[in-house]
Amino acid sequence: MHMYDLITKKKHGAALTDEEIAFMIEGYVKGEIPDYQMSAMLMAIWFSGMTDRETAVLTQVMARSGDQIDLSAIAGKTVDKHSTGGVGDKTTLIACPIVAACGGKIAKMSGRGLGHTGGTVDKLAAIPGYRTELTREEFFHTVETCGISLIGQSGNLAPADKKLYALRDVTATVDSIPLIASSIMSKKLAAGASAILLDVKTGSGAFMKTQEDAIRLAQTMVAIGEAAGRRTVALITDMDVPLGCGIGNSIEVRESAAVLRGEGPADLREVSLALAANMLFLIGKGTPAACRAMAERAIADGSALATLCRMVRAQGGDARVLTGEANFEAAPFSREVCAPRAGFVTRMDAEAIGEVSVVLGAGRETKESVIDPAAGLILHRKYGDAVQAGEPLVTLCTSRQETLAEAAQRYGAAITIGETRPAPRPLIFARVTPEGVERYGGENG
Amino acid sequence: MHMYDLITKKKHGAALTDEEIAFMIEGYVKGEIPDYQMSAMLMAIWFSGMTDRETAVLTQVMARSGDQIDLSAIAGKTVDKHSTGGVGDKTTLIACPIVAACGGKIAKMSGRGLGHTGGTVDKLAAIPGYRTELTREEFFHTVETCGISLIGQSGNLAPADKKLYALRDVTATVDSIPLIASSIMSKKLAAGASAILLDVKTGSGAFMKTQEDAIRLAQTMVAIGEAAGRRTVALITDMDVPLGCGIGNSIEVRESAAVLRGEGPADLREVSLALAANMLFLIGKGTPAACRAMAERAIADGSALATLCRMVRAQGGDARVLTGEANFEAAPFSREVCAPRAGFVTRMDAEAIGEVSVVLGAGRETKESVIDPAAGLILHRKYGDAVQAGEPLVTLCTSRQETLAEAAQRYGAAITIGETRPAPRPLIFARVTPEGVERYGGENG
Repeated sequence: MHMYDLITKKKHGAALTDEEIAFMIEGYVKGEIPDYQMSAMLMAIWFSGMTDRETAVLTQVMARSGDQIDLSAIAGKTVDKHSTGGVGDKTTLIACPIVAACGGKIAKMSGRGLGHTGGTVDKLAAIPGYRTELTREEFFHTVETCGISLIGQSGNLAPADKKLYALRDVTATVDSIPLIASSIMSKKLAAGASAILLDVKTGSGAFMKTQEDAIRLAQTMVAIGEAAGRRTVALITDMDVPLGCGIGNSIEVRESAAVLRGEGPADLREVSLALAANMLFLIGKGTPAACRAMAERAIADGSALATLCRMVRAQGGDARVLTGEANFEAAPFSREVCAPRAGFVTRMDAEAIGEVSVVLGAGRETKESVIDPAAGLILHRKYGDAVQAGEPLVTLCTSRQETLAEAAQRYGAAITIGETRPAPRPLIFARVTPEGVERYGGENG
Repeated sequence: MHMYDLITKKKHGAALTDEEIAFMIEGYVKGEIPDYQMSAMLMAIWFSGMTDRETAVLTQVMARSGDQIDLSAIAGKTVDKHSTGGVGDKTTLIACPIVAACGGKIAKMSGRGLGHTGGTVDKLAAIPGYRTELTREEFFHTVETCGISLIGQSGNLAPADKKLYALRDVTATVDSIPLIASSIMSKKLAAGASAILLDVKTGSGAFMKTQEDAIRLAQTMVAIGEAAGRRTVALITDMDVPLGCGIGNSIEVRESAAVLRGEGPADLREVSLALAANMLFLIGKGTPAACRAMAERAIADGSALATLCRMVRAQGGDARVLTGEANFEAAPFSREVCAPRAGFVTRMDAEAIGEVSVVLGAGRETKESVIDPAAGLILHRKYGDAVQAGEPLVTLCTSRQETLAEAAQRYGAAITIGETRPAPRPLIFARVTPEGVERYGGENG
C-alpha cells in the first residue's frame, strides 16, 4: 500500500477503505508517512470530503493511537460532554454537577482555552487550591465518592489527532467537517464515557458561523459516536452573543455557582438545564421531560451545588467561593464602559468580546500565555436590553491596568446600541440524534 | 504575507497576485516555506486551477529562479522545440538540422529519458564520440559555426521547477495542466530562445491521453510563451502508436539519418517536416506553405543531413554512422516476434511498447539506470499494415539476453491483429497558436 495511491484515490473523490485509513494514520504517527504527503491528503479531503463510514473509521483509528481510558470500573453510567467552544460558556461547571447529583457519573477531562474561547480547566484552576491534575487513582476515587471529577487532559490521548491537528493548523485544512468531527470525537472516544452530549455552538463567537454548518458537524459527530457504540446527542446552541453575564475565569466560576444556587442569568440557566437534561436522557434516566424536571430539582434542592462543592473539596479546592462564604480575590483594576446614548443593545459580537477578555488577561493569545484568573468582563446589559445614556454596559477587570483603554475601546466597537428593541434570539436551535434533527426555531426554524 | 493565507485563498478558488506567487516560489526555493505547506497549495491548485495570468507569472518566477541563458550574442533568430514525450519520437534529430540548414539558429538543451519515453540526449550519446556536455563557449561556438548545437541540460535551469516537480511527484499533483505547463515552459524560457515550437503528444503513449487535454495544455503553454514575449506555437500530434519504426537510442539515430537522406518511414518524415516548417514559420521564414517547401528542400538537397553531420563532428562524434559509411555496433542478442495469425495490425499500445524498450535496456526504469545504446525494437509492421501468419512483427535487440523472453511476451500483448484493416489515423490533430486552434481532423475533427 502506498500513500501516493491513497492521495490519488481521494483527490478523484473515491472513499478510502478501512485498511487504507489505518495504514495512513498509523504510518503518519510512526513518521513513516511524511508531513508533505499528509498535507496533500488533508487538502484532498478538504475538497472531496469523506463518507460517514470513512469519518467513523478515521476517528476510531485516531482514538486508538494512544491511551484509551477504561471507565468500566466505575459503578453507574458515565456520560461526557463536549462544547465546540464559546465566550462565557461555563455550562460544564453547571450541567455536570447536576447530572452527578442525579446519579450520572462524570469522569471528565477538559482542555485549556486558546484565543477568544475559554477552557474549563482554566476556570477550575481559578478556585483556590483546586488541583486540575490528579493521578489515575485519585481521579477514579473522586468519581466514586463524589460522582464527578473534572480534571485537565493528561496522558497521551489521541496523539494522532494532536499530530494531524498541528499540520492542519499550518496548511489551512482545519475547516473541514469530517476532519473537525474526527478530531473532537477521537478524544471523546479515547476518554471512555459510554455516552456523549455535544454542544455545537453557532454564531459570531463560534467556529461554525451558520446553523446549517453546525447541524452538519453535529450530524457527523453523532454518527461517529453511534458507529463506535456510544450513545450520542448534540444540541445546536447560540454563540452569537456571550452566554451569561460573566467572562473570565473566577468570574465564570462565581456565575456558575450562582446558577446552581437558583440565581444567575436566565440564558445560562436555560442552556445548562437543557444540556444536563439531555445528558440524563442519554444515560437512561427517563423521558426528556422527566430528565428536565430532574435537572431543575437538582438546582432547587441544592444537591447539584453540594455535589460541585464536594468535588472541589475532594480535589483540594476552597468550596467557600461557591457557596458565597468567601469571595474570589478581585482584580486590582477595573473600568466601566457606559452607553454613549439611550436605546437597546442590538448587537454583541461574541468573538470580539472574547478577544477583549484576552486583552484583559483572561485568555491566551498563544499556548505559552499566562492567565490572570481574576481578569474578565461583567456584562450589565445584554442583547435586547434597554439602556439609558451613561448607564454602564460592562465592567472590565484586570491586573494589568495598561490594558483597560484598549479593552474599553474594543468593547465599544463590539456592541451596537440601536433605537428599537431587536427580536429575541432562541438559545437552542436544534437537537441532533441518530434518528434525525429536531429544530426549535431560529433563523431556519 | 503568509503562506497560510495564500493556501486559504487558493482553496477557495481565488487567483493569487503576482506578488503572492513570487513570495511563494522564492520562499519555497529558499527553504522558508516548508514542503508540507507547498504540497497543500499544490493540491489546492489541482482542484481550483490557475488563471492564464497566474500560470504565466508562476512560469516566469520559476524561470528566473536559476540560470537564464542569454542567446542574444547569436546572430540570427533562435528557435527551440519541446516534445511532451513519446515512444520512438526522434523528431528533434530531424527537424532541428532542417531548421538550421534553412538559416534558423538552434541552441538547444535536451533532457534524458525516463520510463517509457526516450530522451534526445540519450540518443545523441549513442553516436560514438559525441559530447553531450560542452562548455558555454563550445556551445555558442558550435551554434555559430554549424547553426545548431544539441547538448544535455546543464547548469542550474529553473531550480524552482526541479524542487516543485520532486514534491509533485510524491504528492499526486503532477497531473494539473497549469503545473505541467509552467514546469515545461519555465525551462524553455530560461533556455533563452526567442521562439518555441511545442509538440504536444496525445494518445496511449502520451501523458495527455485525450486530444482535448492535449489542446488545453497546448493553449496554456502558448499563452505562457506569448506572455513572456516568446513566439510560441504548438502542434498536437499522435502518440497512440510509436513514431517511425525504430525505438532505442542508436536505432533511432540511424532512422533519423535515413529520413534526412530522403528515406525512412513516412509518418516520421511527415511529423518532422511539419515541426520544422512551423519552427521556420516562427522565426519569420515565410508563409506556412513556403516554410514547408523550404524544409522539404533541405532534405532533398542534403543540406539538413550535412548540417547534422557538421554538428556531430564539431562535438566530437563519428558522423559516418549518419551517412551510412559506418554502422553502429549491433546488439549481441536479438529475437523476432512473429504474427500468430494473418490479418491487420489494429492496435499498437505505444506506452506498453515503450516499456518493452525499457525491459530490453534502451530506457531507464529509475534515474540511476544505465542505458544500453544498442538495445531497442525495429518494427516491421505498424498500425494498419497487413501481415501473414508467421511473418515478423518486430525485431527485439538487447545486450541482455535474459530480457528477450519477457520483452517478446509483452510485445505480443501490446499489439492486436484484427481481421479488417482499421481506419487510418491522422498524424497531426491540431495546431495551436495565440490566435486559436486549427483542427486537422481526428476523433474530434
